[in-house]
Parts: sequence; structure tokens; C-alpha cells
Amino acid sequence: MELAEFASRLDEELRTADYADIDASANGLQVGPDEGELEHVAFAVDGVAETFEGAIDADADALVVHHGISWGGFDRVTGRKYDRIAPLIENDVALYVSHLPLDGHQDHGNAAGVADVLGLENRSPFGELGPEYIGQRGTALESYSLESLCDRLESELDTGDRQVRGLGFGPEEISEIAIVTGSGTDWLEEAVDARVDALVTGEGKQKVYHEAREAGINVVLAGHYATETFGVQSLQELAGEWGLETTYLDVPTGL
Amino acid sequence: MELAEFASRLDEELRTADYADIDASANGLQVGPDEGELEHVAFAVDGVAETFEGAIDADADALVVHHGISWGGFDRVTGRKYDRIAPLIENDVALYVSHLPLDGHQDHGNAAGVADVLGLENRSPFGELGPEYIGQRGTALESYSLESLCDRLESELDTGDRQVRGLGFGPEEISEIAIVTGSGTDWLEEAVDARVDALVTGEGKQKVYHEAREAGINVVLAGHYATETFGVQSLQELAGEWGLETTYLDVPTGL
Amino acid sequence: MELAEFASRLDEELRTADYADIDASANGLQVGPDEGELEHVAFAVDGVAETFEGAIDADADALVVHHGISWGGFDRVTGRKYDRIAPLIENDVALYVSHLPLDGHQDHGNAAGVADVLGLENRSPFGELGPEYIGQRGTALESYSLESLCDRLESELDTGDRQVRGLGFGPEEISEIAIVTGSGTDWLEEAVDARVDALVTGEGKQKVYHEAREAGINVVLAGHYATETFGVQSLQELAGEWGLETTYLDVPTGL
Amino acid sequence: MELAEFASRLDEELRTADYADIDASANGLQVGPDEGELEHVAFAVDGVAETFEGAIDADADALVVHHGISWGGFDRVTGRKYDRIAPLIENDVALYVSHLPLDGHQDHGNAAGVADVLGLENRSPFGELGPEYIGQRGTALESYSLESLCDRLESELDTGDRQVRGLGFGPEEISEIAIVTGSGTDWLEEAVDARVDALVTGEGKQKVYHEAREAGINVVLAGHYATETFGVQSLQELAGEWGLETTYLDVPTGL
Amino acid sequence: MELAEFASRLDEELRTADYADIDASANGLQVGPDEGELEHVAFAVDGVAETFEGAIDADADALVVHHGISWGGFDRVTGRKYDRIAPLIENDVALYVSHLPLDGHQDHGNAAGVADVLGLENRSPFGELGPEYIGQRGTALESYSLESLCDRLESELDTGDRQVRGLGFGPEEISEIAIVTGSGTDWLEEAVDARVDALVTGEGKQKVYHEAREAGINVVLAGHYATETFGVQSLQELAGEWGLETTYLDVPTGL
Amino acid sequence: MELAEFASRLDEELRTADYADIDASANGLQVGPDEGELEHVAFAVDGVAETFEGAIDADADALVVHHGISWGGFDRVTGRKYDRIAPLIENDVALYVSHLPLDGHQDHGNAAGVADVLGLENRSPFGELGPEYIGQRGTALESYSLESLCDRLESELDTGDRQVRGLGFGPEEISEIAIVTGSGTDWLEEAVDARVDALVTGEGKQKVYHEAREAGINVVLAGHYATETFGVQSLQELAGEWGLETTYLDVPTGL
Repeated sequence: MELAEFASRLDEELRTADYADIDASANGLQVGPDEGELEHVAFAVDGVAETFEGAIDADADALVVHHGISWGGFDRVTGRKYDRIAPLIENDVALYVSHLPLDGHQDHGNAAGVADVLGLENRSPFGELGPEYIGQRGTALESYSLESLCDRLESELDTGDRQVRGLGFGPEEISEIAIVTGSGTDWLEEAVDARVDALVTGEGKQKVYHEAREAGINVVLAGHYATETFGVQSLQELAGEWGLETTYLDVPTGL
Repeated sequence: MELAEFASRLDEELRTADYADIDASANGLQVGPDEGELEHVAFAVDGVAETFEGAIDADADALVVHHGISWGGFDRVTGRKYDRIAPLIENDVALYVSHLPLDGHQDHGNAAGVADVLGLENRSPFGELGPEYIGQRGTALESYSLESLCDRLESELDTGDRQVRGLGFGPEEISEIAIVTGSGTDWLEEAVDARVDALVTGEGKQKVYHEAREAGINVVLAGHYATETFGVQSLQELAGEWGLETTYLDVPTGL
Repeated sequence: MELAEFASRLDEELRTADYADIDASANGLQVGPDEGELEHVAFAVDGVAETFEGAIDADADALVVHHGISWGGFDRVTGRKYDRIAPLIENDVALYVSHLPLDGHQDHGNAAGVADVLGLENRSPFGELGPEYIGQRGTALESYSLESLCDRLESELDTGDRQVRGLGFGPEEISEIAIVTGSGTDWLEEAVDARVDALVTGEGKQKVYHEAREAGINVVLAGHYATETFGVQSLQELAGEWGLETTYLDVPTGL
Repeated sequence: MELAEFASRLDEELRTADYADIDASANGLQVGPDEGELEHVAFAVDGVAETFEGAIDADADALVVHHGISWGGFDRVTGRKYDRIAPLIENDVALYVSHLPLDGHQDHGNAAGVADVLGLENRSPFGELGPEYIGQRGTALESYSLESLCDRLESELDTGDRQVRGLGFGPEEISEIAIVTGSGTDWLEEAVDARVDALVTGEGKQKVYHEAREAGINVVLAGHYATETFGVQSLQELAGEWGLETTYLDVPTGL
Repeated sequence: MELAEFASRLDEELRTADYADIDASANGLQVGPDEGELEHVAFAVDGVAETFEGAIDADADALVVHHGISWGGFDRVTGRKYDRIAPLIENDVALYVSHLPLDGHQDHGNAAGVADVLGLENRSPFGELGPEYIGQRGTALESYSLESLCDRLESELDTGDRQVRGLGFGPEEISEIAIVTGSGTDWLEEAVDARVDALVTGEGKQKVYHEAREAGINVVLAGHYATETFGVQSLQELAGEWGLETTYLDVPTGL
Repeated sequence: MELAEFASRLDEELRTADYADIDASANGLQVGPDEGELEHVAFAVDGVAETFEGAIDADADALVVHHGISWGGFDRVTGRKYDRIAPLIENDVALYVSHLPLDGHQDHGNAAGVADVLGLENRSPFGELGPEYIGQRGTALESYSLESLCDRLESELDTGDRQVRGLGFGPEEISEIAIVTGSGTDWLEEAVDARVDALVTGEGKQKVYHEAREAGINVVLAGHYATETFGVQSLQELAGEWGLETTYLDVPTGL
């Protein structure tokens, strides 16, 4: 498949253009020529030296990641920016990035993947950001306790050596659950207004402790990396259906 | 002591005015009348419902905290803002806040307290923010390994049930150490340029993993709360010297 | 009635949300808890210490005003801000504010009240501000002279010891009249374009003299306070219909 | 005298350049050619059609005013802008403007003129605006009552048919007096902090009533026009000393 | 015809209001009174002293130009601004300006005029600027070579002593042609995306050389003045149809 | 020599940091690794595909240019950005850029080079941009006519097939000359105020014709490329003195 065709199919599927105004990440193709042929595509959560090396070792023609290398633009290709971009160019590996579009996609997205793990039903978009959503909510048919919710996530997610942390300030029976993967505690207020029993996210700054306590809601911090492996793996499946060879590069950070 | 006198002594000691342009926190007196007498002052890291209740129970006339309730201004005294401010007013407890001025104070500050714990010498300011500093660096006479550095912090800091986490991407012998308490990973680049062996901070977003790996530096995440108890406790000592009765309210978040 | 219910009924009636982007005033509930019961509501033009004391003396549970205490946000509850907010909190008096929504309401609004006094017919919105209006225009069936117009206002409005001032630079027979209460001289140009015979407002800066002269229009300055008692009194009536006990606190400034 | 020479002498005397960043008025020469000779100069408070006609009738070569026609720039010379500028150009009358520089000048300024009328001693600058001052304060050797202060101003100033208004919320004996002419109530807070007994200004918006009441200070509103005749008349004297024929055009607005 | 009627007919024909947000030029009437009668109108590309003198010599009542005197507003009518405006006012010549609206008009516009010269068919708007277009594209039935294209323009346009310059980096046979008159090289990218064979414009900064070379497109620089005589001449025709006497003032700059 | 050492010597010589706030160009090293050895450096006016190919063909380790590839930052390394950056990375050619610092340098700069060609004496900085200068002025001992000035430039500069253009609106004898290379007509006003006889620059937009005419000054347009070869050639000499092998890549644009 042509690289341009591949990028444009993903852009369409993920509605990349709709997120342009709300995402600091420059989504879509970040590094690559106008012309080029793809046979083998690698997938990873983070676009960093370690996964770039992995993609080169795997002889991939492109790497699709959730976290890219361009956040708000850059002025130079020097220093660590050079160290990241040069290997891609020298080894003809294109870099495709999908940040918020991949968080919010209601089928292929990260939150959708966590909702699958938790067996949620009656799904609907959650996590407003401007005119878009970057998460999902749903109902657990059989309610969880905070402990069983944490256990479920710890056993199903790739948490590295990190422990899933539960802040138990809400109801004991948890069935309505909102999910914003990665750093999602800015949506605590929306979760409270939506009257869900728990907000599941990846990582949270210190102040979420007291915010959750005063709002009377359960919060689960399951790891930034751990909650964000689903989106790129779902795209990997899609690429397989398009006839491409694929590789997943697992580099858990434990954060 | 007059409340106004107390606030103005702290403002002077902490150089509150110098941080006005670089700190989103409205430092200084945040809640309180122009006139009022102080006998008993409470101290805590976080200015939240839980510590407000503690100050009221302790019959304190004022509460001094590191994290206040005003970040960028507010429009209304309603909802949780009302729930926090009303008890202070109803119980005549003034609220004094010192955020970055207390991070950066080279004697009373949070980083200075962590440096004491680590036994650092040859101290100098670290962590540039505009024209000010919000951290400190120094040299350990006997070098640490990453493990012994984490152990030392875990035994001396109030980490709640959180584990000190070390990202071992730098030299094995650690003697030059930079400290920015709380959320300090934005100063990773400065730490690399300063050629220190490790950056000690509280909490870090997921991306710090790969940034540290590619920069070749050790990073220690010892907890946001745990690294920020020193400043307010140092002010507590100062208030004691001024003849005031004092109480420390310990509410570790484990984050 | 629940305080929340009361605030939300007023917000709906006055379309508070529609004015959010064009009004520096934080309209709606400005001080008050999420929960609380109302029996008695006081009403006043200005939300200031004098009316706060009045509301407390009247044993009111809430005070509804046109001019509140939050214009563009504040950072601290100290000084005069403390002196105003503390009595409200200590005496459980909530503060509800409606500034431009109450100027512009075509039935309950301040301009509508002045138009009633002047007996105007064929009313339509006047005083564009972004997508909204903050005044009203209409036709006097029997035309006024400038003198009779001033006299009419002086006798019907609560002008304190202030004299209604007429700038007679327009037609002698005045039947088409535009009204923007309070400080409305910024709408002089719109009044000229609308070919009305007179603009009635509250107060005007010095330059309105020559602007009116050169534009050839009559301007009447009837007092800021005097032209703005109608809105809150109309809401008082509404509250009475909702079964609440009400009090009007008259504190004319003569300005 | 050359027009350019005249403008440049005034700019130097009034330090026009120092006010460039804090004044919306484009001070200095606003309308006029690079070359031209002056014999006769008119002076007025307001630069408006009425005074432009006066200057033309008086056969003046230039008009010096406090309030000019350029506030923040304009895009076109059409409509009323044309009606004002065209007569100046057609009759070869240049327009020189000095707004804040003339308010704040400690000898020739408007506040200095009011201080003369009140017989104040120990004068010092008052009314901070960025790095400059736009008013003056001083001490009355024999203290005034509010009534005698108002009477003094009413008898000495050109108030038209407007009454000097006193808001008596401060001490009964008034000796320390701060003056900001025109619209000066934004400096009420500075007057309170400076512990003066009264603030004398020209006009005030309605809210000054309660601000003065709660701050416990006397405020005198003596008229915008009435307090601002001094500056241009002082410049008129200066021009006379430079050998120019001069005329003062008195057009009181009563506002 | 009334001046106001003339200006408003042109504004409507040219959709002046639609360009207000995207054009630095204050389009429409720039100098002139609200009332005035027109018999004779002059037309020129540039609104400058030379054409103002021409209009006065021709005894015109108004001058219509493409480049006016107000770009982003001005603060004073002094210096060269006075030298330009004063003669207009003294001789009762109104100034009407149409910049981008006249570039983009698909019938009367500058690009449309160049397209006529080149005999293009299947015309459509080209040159996006916000929601509007400022150029035109079309197809030459018989294809040009770069040389014949330059020759054609050189013979038909008023290029002064300037040579039409062709940058031959695109296909040898040129049939699809995009036109943005004046300074149009910012639309090179759009021309490439539109897959036209050549972009015809007036003047180009030095960097267009390499941009054209790397993009593989022909660029023709035919002169800023030379490509922009069409719009005002088309308006001249229109004015003639409205019964007005007209004059065209040709002042080629050779730039 | 180390690449880092080379870049840092140039940065110091050219005072790169002082121009950071006034130049859209990201001056200094734009593409290149932290470590690398230099033996051979190429120099060119424009950093474009053509000179990149030239540098690669010449087997250079770095290319120093006046116009780089980063103006205000970029988000992606794709399309033509990829086409420019990839060859540099694949062939280990670093890119060093100096835009305004090289225009303004009083010895090595572009304007200084033009002044040498014209034999100017009594040189001083000209062309204010914020706190810096980007041009130079001086006195010709024997005065030029406009024609002889144009001839001199045409014979000494690499103008490609472009003709030096003189706008003869100033004095016939030209001895005081101001120079701003490239696009320098924004400094026309400064040249008039400085009372020089002519402004020599590279290229000018159409409006400079009438601006020069009305200001009464001579303007010479000698070509953007042609006036900007001096700076990089002066740096080439410097690099030769530092013991490096050097190549100059001449790609005149004729613009």
C-alpha cells in the first residue's frame, strides 16, 4: 500500500482533522516522504528512541504511535530531536501519530478498550474537549467493589511493576463507570456531574486525592501506559485486515 | 500577633512579591479580614476541606499551606468553593498560602528540606522559573546508588503507602543531585545540562520515562506530598520562634 | 423552595447563560452553598455592604441584586471583599446577581420598566451587545417635549436628590424613544442610526454632551440608580408569585 | 513661530513621549501639516465641532485641547470624523492635543490648578498610572468641612448649571486632599491607602457611592469640564509668554 | 448621483462587508462627507499624491482606487498623511477604496481581467483567503509555452519599463493557469495542490524562485501595477453605465 | 573542528542570541547532531534543495546559509520539508543559519559588503529593528549620480539577469547612502529621517515607488540575492582562517 494512502485511510477512520484545534499533538503523518510503499507496519504507545529502534529492527516501513514527537511545533532538528528523527529517515521508517483522535474513537479508542476489559454496556461518549470527546462511559451489569475493580484492571492491563491505585471516596457498589485514559483527572468534575460511581484513568496529579474526597467519587489510577495500549493495537488489527504485515512493540513504562 | 503583621512577616521572609508574575497561585493571605489577632497557627501541605476541619478542631486562628484554593482567580463563592471557604469564615480561621516561594526558599523551602535529608553539601539554587528558582542542587559527600538513594528517601519521607520509584538511566554512582519537589520533571533538561547524576522530584508524567532514558539521567519519583512537607514545617518552626502556638496537620495523599 | 431551584428558575427566565460571553459580571448565584432552603428573599439594585446588612436585618435567606461583587474574577477573600462576603456566609444569606440579562429582559428588565413609565408602545429590543440586546425602544402615543420628558422621569423615578438632566440637541417633539438604563451613552450612535428622537439613559460621561450636539439627538440622563430599580422589583414580584416572602431594600445613591 | 517648533516645545514641556504607552489619546499634533506659521492660538477643553468653529471664527492658526479626536486610531475620514477634520484643514487650523500629560503636569496640570483653588500646600504627585502620575495631593492649612469644600469649588470652578456633589463618608475635618480631575474614581483605592481625607474629582460612576461609603472616605464630584479648564489655560499663558496671540474658548458642558 | 448612493452601490456590487475581517485595507469610502453630489469620478490603481493631483486636475468629485491610504488605522492627520488627505478635502474629492474585494471579484476583478487577456475558459475562483477568494483560474484552449505566455502578458499589460519574468520550473505546455494579481506568491502551494501548470502574479519575493523550482511549477511575475489595472477600469465602465463622467489616471510604477 | 565548536564560535561572532526575539528565523544550528567532526564547510545564500545538493556533491560536512528552512517553527517533517531535511541527514550535512545577525554585522554583514563595494566611509549602523540594527550607512567621498550608482552595483554584484532599478526621486548628487540588503523598503522612513540621499536595498514592493516619490528620496533596488552574497562569503573567509576547507555555492535567483 502507498504510504499516502495508508495515512489518509487512518486520518479518515480516526477523523484526524476534527481534532486539529483541540490537540497540541500534530496528528497524522509526522515524519515521512510524499511517496513510499508500505508492507510492514509497527505499532507502539510511545514514539521514542526505544520504539524507533524496535521498528527499525523489525524492518518496518512505518511506525504508528499514540504519543508522537511534535507537540506545538519545533524550530530545529538538533539534539534529541535529531537523535529521534535521524534514525527514522536513515532507515526509511515513516512515523504516523494519533493522539486524542485515538483516545476518543468510540470503537478503536483507548477508553473503548478499557470499557471492553470491564465489560461495560450502554456505552456513550464521555470526556468533553471542545466539540469532541476523548473517553467513554458505560454500565457494568454486575457491580464492582473498588477492590474488585482494581484487581480486574491489574490482571488485564500491562501495568509493568506499577500497582493500580484506588481512591475510595465514592459509593461502595460501582456500576456506572467513566473512563478517560492517560492523564484524565481534569474530567473529574464532569464525572461527578454525570453521577457515575467511579472515574477510571491512568495517572493523576496529587491534588486529585482531595478533589475526589470532597466530591465523593471513586477514582482509579491504572497507569498511563497501561490504559493506552488498546488504541494502537486496534489499529494494528485494522492494518492486518488491509493486508499489511504488522508488529506490536511493547515498552511498558510502569508510569 | 496581628494577622496582618504575621502575613507581612511571612511575605517578606518568603519574598512573596517576587513570585507574583510566575506563580498561578495567589500567594499570601487568601482568606481573612484586615484585622484580627493570632495565637495559634496550624500548618499543612494542602489547603483542603480535610485540613480546614483539622485547623478548626485545633482551634487555630490561621492555617498556613503550600497548596491554596486560588489558582488563577475565581468568579463565585459557590459549590465546593463555598464548602471550603465558608467553614474558614464561620470559624474565624484565616488562610495563608505560599506555593512557589516556599518551593524555592534556599533555607526554609521544600527542596532545601529534601537536600537536608540527603545530606547534600555545596548547595546552590536549581530549577529556573523566569527570574527565580524553585529547587536546589548539591553534592553528596558519599555517593549513593540508585537503590540506596530511593531507600533513604523512603525511610525519611512521609510517602503514605506509595513506593519511591527510581528510573535508573544515569550513572551508577550518584553524588551530584538536583531537587525540584512536587511535579518537577519539566526541569529534566536543566538537570541534564547541569550534568547532575540524578533529579529527585515528587511525581512525573508518563513521558518522563523515555525522556530520562534518552538523556541518560537517573530520576527519582518520591511522591508529591512526601517531598513537600518540609517547607510548611520550617515555617511552623519560625512561627514558634515568634511566640505562636502551632500545630502540624499531617494528611498524606500517597500521591 | 430550594436555593438551587430558585437560582435555576431565575437563570432560565433571564437566559443567564446567553449573556455569559458579553457580561463582565458573573451572573447567577455568586455566593451560596449547593444546598439550602429559601423562605424570604430580599431585592436591591446594588450588592454592597449596606444592602447586605439590610438583607440580614430582614432575616432574608437570599439577596437578589443587579450589581454584584464579582466582575472579572477575584484572587482572594480579603480586605473589602472579605468584609462583603463574610457577613453573607455568617448569616446564611445567598447572593444572586443578574446584570445585563436583567437590563435586557423585554418584560422584566430595567429598560422595559422605564418604557412602562413613559407609556411607550410598539416596543422592540434596542442596545445591541454582541448577539443580545440590553435596552428597549418604543413610541410615545402623545409626543413629549424634552422638558415634559424630564419632568415625567423626575416624578416617577427614585432619583434621590439628583436632577434629571436633558441635553436638548434633537427634535422638539419627542415620540420615538430608545432606552438603555445605567451607563448607556455608548449606544448613542445606534440611537442616531435608528432615527429615534431621544436616548434615555442613567448617567453619561462628559463627552456625551458634544456627541449628542453633533449628532443632533436629545439625550436624557435620569440617574444610574433611578433607571435600574425596575428589574429587581419585577423579579421581586415573580418571587412573590412563587410563594416566597419578599423585601425591597431601597438605597438610592443619587448618582 | 513655526507650527513644528510650537508642537515640539509643548511636547517637551509636557513630556508627551513618556505618556505614549499609558494614554489612549494620540497626544501631540493630531491634525496639521509639517510646515506652517503660527500667530494666533486658541485653547479649549474639548476638541469638538463647537470649539473648532470657535477657533475658525477667532482666526486662530492652531487649537490646543485636552480632549482630542483620536482615541485608539481611526480607519476613515468620513461621517462625523470628516465633519470635524474637514473644517480644520479647510481653514488651516492645526489641532494639538494633550490629555494625560496635561492632567499630570505638576505645575501646568489640571489637578495642580484645582489644588491652587483649594490653597493646598506640601504638594506631591498622586494618581499612579503605570510609571506616571495624573493627579496631585496636598494639605489645606485650614481644614475644610465637606460643605465648605463643595462651596469653595462651586464658587471657583466653571460648573455650568451642575451642582458640586459631596459624598460624606469620611472624616468631618478635611485637610489632606487628593485630586484627580475628570473621571478619577478609579483612584479611590489609592486615596484610601494614602490616608487622605477626601478625593476631589470631576465625575463618578454610580458605584463610587458604595465604594466611598465602605472605605470611609469623602468624595467630591465637581464636574468633568469644571475640573479640567486649568491645564489648557495654563498652556495659554505659556503661549502668551512665547509671544503668541491667544484665545480661550469656554464651552462648559455642565457634565 | 449622491456620493453615499455611489459608495453603497459599489459596496454591494463588490461585497465589501464580506472582506472586512480578512483585509487590512479599510475598504469602502475612506475620505468624504456624508452628503455630496457626484458627476465625475476618476479611477486609478494607487491612491497617492500623484493620482490625487490627477483627480483634482480632472475636476473629479471622487477617486476610486485599489490601494488606499488606510491600512490598519492611523492616529493622526499629520506629515505625509496630511499631505495626502488635505488636498482631497480642500478640493472636495472623495476617496473610495476597494482592495481585496476588487482582486477577487469574478467578473470585475483584477484576476478576471488577466484571465480575459489570456483567453482562459472554464473559470473558477482561486486564491483562498479565509472564506473568500482573491484570484481566478481557468484553462487556455490552446496551450502556451512559458515564453509565449510571458510575451502575451508583456504585450497586453501596462508593465512600464519592467520585463515580465518567467520562472520555468513546470511543464512545457501550459494550459491550466491560476492567477493572483499583485503579490500573489503566497498562493504557490495552493497552485501546486490544484495541479495547474503556471501561477501568474505580479511581484514575488526572492524565495519564490526556489519554492517554484522544488514544487515543479511555472511562475510568471508580470508586475504588481501591470496586473492590477483591470479592476478599477472595470469599475470605471460600470460608473459610465450609471451615467457618470469618468477618467482613468494611468501612473505605472514599473514594479 | 567539532560541529558544536564551529556553531558556537559563529553564534558568538554573530551575536545570534541577541537577535532571538526579533528574527522569525531560527538562527544557529538548524539541522545536525550534538556530536560530529567538520573538515569541509559549504556556504550559500539560500538553504534550499539546490544548495543542499551542491553541498552533498562537494562532500561538505556542513552548509552555512543566510536563509534557512525554519521560520516560525514547523510541525512535521513531511512533504517538501522532508525533501529538504532528508538529504542533509542521509549525507551527514549539518545546516547552520544566520539571517538578521548576518545582515546587521558591521564587519561581516551583507550591508557592510555593499558599503565596501560603494567605497563608503564614516560607517555607522542603520536599519533599526527593536534594539538591533540590520544595515549600515556611510558617505561616498566622491558623490554618485543615480545612474553611476546603479551602474556600479550592476557591475559589482551578482545580479543574474536582473537589472538594477533606480527610483530617482531624491537629490541628483548622492553621497550619503543607507543600505539594508534583501527586502529593505520598510526602512524608507528611517532613511528619510536620517536625511540620506539614497536607500540601497534588494527588492521592493510596488508601493515603494510612491513612498519614495512623496518623500523625495532616491531608492535603488539591486536584487535580493545580489545584495546578500557578502555575509556568507565573509563567514567563508573566517572558516578558512579557522583551518577549514570551504566551498561557495553560487545560485543566483535574479530576484
